[in-house]
Amino acid sequence: MTPSTFIQTARQTDGEARTGVLMTPHGEIPTPVFMPVGTQGTVKALTPAMLEEAGARLILANTYHLYLRPGRELIKKFGGLHKFMNWPGAILTDSGGFQVFSLGALRKITADGVLFQSHIDGSKHFISPETAIGIQEDLGADIIMAFDECTPYPATREQAKTSLDITMDWAVRCKKVKTREDQALFGIVQGGTYLDLRLEALSRITEIGFDGYALGGLSVGEPKEKMMEIVQKMAPRLPEHHPRYVMGVGTPEDIVRCVDFGIDMFDCVMPTRCARNGLLFTNQEKVVIKNARYRDDQSPLDAACDCYTCRNFTRAYLRHLYISREILAMILNTIHNVRFYQRLMEDIRRAVRNGDFRRFMRDFLARMAYSETECTATADEL
Amino acid sequence: MTPSTFIQTARQTDGEARTGVLMTPHGEIPTPVFMPVGTQGTVKALTPAMLEEAGARLILANTYHLYLRPGRELIKKFGGLHKFMNWPGAILTDSGGFQVFSLGALRKITADGVLFQSHIDGSKHFISPETAIGIQEDLGADIIMAFDECTPYPATREQAKTSLDITMDWAVRCKKVKTREDQALFGIVQGGTYLDLRLEALSRITEIGFDGYALGGLSVGEPKEKMMEIVQKMAPRLPEHHPRYVMGVGTPEDIVRCVDFGIDMFDCVMPTRCARNGLLFTNQEKVVIKNARYRDDQSPLDAACDCYTCRNFTRAYLRHLYISREILAMILNTIHNVRFYQRLMEDIRRAVRNGDFRRFMRDFLARMAYSETECTATADEL
Repeated sequence: MTPSTFIQTARQTDGEARTGVLMTPHGEIPTPVFMPVGTQGTVKALTPAMLEEAGARLILANTYHLYLRPGRELIKKFGGLHKFMNWPGAILTDSGGFQVFSLGALRKITADGVLFQSHIDGSKHFISPETAIGIQEDLGADIIMAFDECTPYPATREQAKTSLDITMDWAVRCKKVKTREDQALFGIVQGGTYLDLRLEALSRITEIGFDGYALGGLSVGEPKEKMMEIVQKMAPRLPEHHPRYVMGVGTPEDIVRCVDFGIDMFDCVMPTRCARNGLLFTNQEKVVIKNARYRDDQSPLDAACDCYTCRNFTRAYLRHLYISREILAMILNTIHNVRFYQRLMEDIRRAVRNGDFRRFMRDFLARMAYSETECTATADEL
Repeated sequence: MTPSTFIQTARQTDGEARTGVLMTPHGEIPTPVFMPVGTQGTVKALTPAMLEEAGARLILANTYHLYLRPGRELIKKFGGLHKFMNWPGAILTDSGGFQVFSLGALRKITADGVLFQSHIDGSKHFISPETAIGIQEDLGADIIMAFDECTPYPATREQAKTSLDITMDWAVRCKKVKTREDQALFGIVQGGTYLDLRLEALSRITEIGFDGYALGGLSVGEPKEKMMEIVQKMAPRLPEHHPRYVMGVGTPEDIVRCVDFGIDMFDCVMPTRCARNGLLFTNQEKVVIKNARYRDDQSPLDAACDCYTCRNFTRAYLRHLYISREILAMILNTIHNVRFYQRLMEDIRRAVRNGDFRRFMRDFLARMAYSETECTATADEL
């Protein structure tokens, strides 16, 4: 059994939704799973104990950030990222491709790899598929990602095709250079918004063969319905007996809809970033905690929530902390939003197990309107 | 038995150090006690659960800040500050006098009270001894403080005398207007650096009669040895059967020395503010966590410490978090420093109980050099 072996345990008949277990060296992860983002070796504002209490078992960390600071050698010396950050659960590292892509003017892409300048100190670095895998082997995550070029939006068909060819070449090199047996390597399907290119990418990437498959290059500015169309078309075609991951998604509704298309894994900064900006998720309403209407509100943020924040504090106190710019606002808000996402995934898994997912989705989407949720971007989470 | 009844349980023969218990409606507080500062209804960067785990049983909150935001009526409506912030332990509120004093150009002191402008929005407010007590009754702390005028340093003898007379007049008015039976009211001894004025103040304040006595107007810029001289002379003269509190002190050495003079209660932003600025207390050395020497340091911050931070993380990780400006740096650093201060107080109490305090103090002062500790001031903690 390879790391990240995926065992499907239930499947909808009226849709593609499925539930299963992802086996990793750091535990069995029930899917569909949402990974909170721990950019710099910490999920912002949470201790590992809080993260565990919120129900997270698998988190994402950013290769680009950790490579620049504190550096791959340091983390390797400490026995890997799990030990460095004292996280007992599983970790997935991205390849750095998306972050380097986000640097814009600071990076130059060639067939060999990417030359870029550090956003921290302007120092120059070169990452190739070979170094991306080497760094991820030093970090030691349970799941690592192939180094890809994230096709921007908009892109002409020709640009998307060129980008896809580079990604395919790099995918071969990534698989070839990988040495660690205890890490799973996922391939990434690019192709922009061109369905035929996506299908070509899928065919080539499955031919190479990976432990799991991701849809990349989504959530990069394309219209929401375009993104959903691609996930809907592509997800059911991703290999059935491997985990399927859509990168950088998303809102609670996006997640529910993507599960319906057959996706197993998600990551997004939304719950943590929104929390720091005072936007809190509940099953009843969107709570913008600074609003004057919560000034005297003695009720918990979400009476149905079992998190530390909801069990112990009122909306009025959370508003006071936020308005007063207290660090505790960030802590309590993040605890809640991370728990909200984990509870959502628990609800999704339960619905799929009960053969009831489509009804769950209808009810959920009728109740929610998070797609318009705006979270101010912060530079530290590219 | 009035609230804050003080029962002395042990006393040194070779000095004034003593240990005892302070009875409050929210628990029995062993003394000497250090109160972490919770300016705006939260000890910065800690959940109440973390604060409890660090061993804190009594915290200080600032009347001035809470009066301005979220406001006395709101906190009263929520059943008081304990419930508002969900703190099961005891609370002492200062009177607001020191904060108003710190406003400088924004305030005008008259015999009636103080007219001042909010540091938040510039709005004008007037606080008299009567309103200071009224606000503190609304906040509902276990221990409240008389409204005083904090004599600045330097001050001429005449200025100090005038200031003292105002404070004495206000002390009478505070005691007269107090209505709640479940709150202890402490009087404050002013008099600047003039010992004869300090003695006059003590005589007048004990004649009025309070549940406890504080030395105020210290740690306001006077030389450290001048401050220590005043505490040394005054502390043993404060009524023996009431708690003795020196406000705004201080470094670990200051606390140990003041205990030797007979002081029971302390508060200071030092552990929390230093933590946020990356300065960490240990029994072996001062740790400036950003220093390059900790880059590869796999040891815990303090191997002798039982806090969550020391039990779970390395110095290298703490350095990475601090350098990366992660919120978790603030959380973990604060957990440690608050626990360090609480452990210091536990050690002090044990030494006094064992009749061994003077030896403990000698060893401690030989080992420590925290007096020169510099913590960058932050505007949010006046």
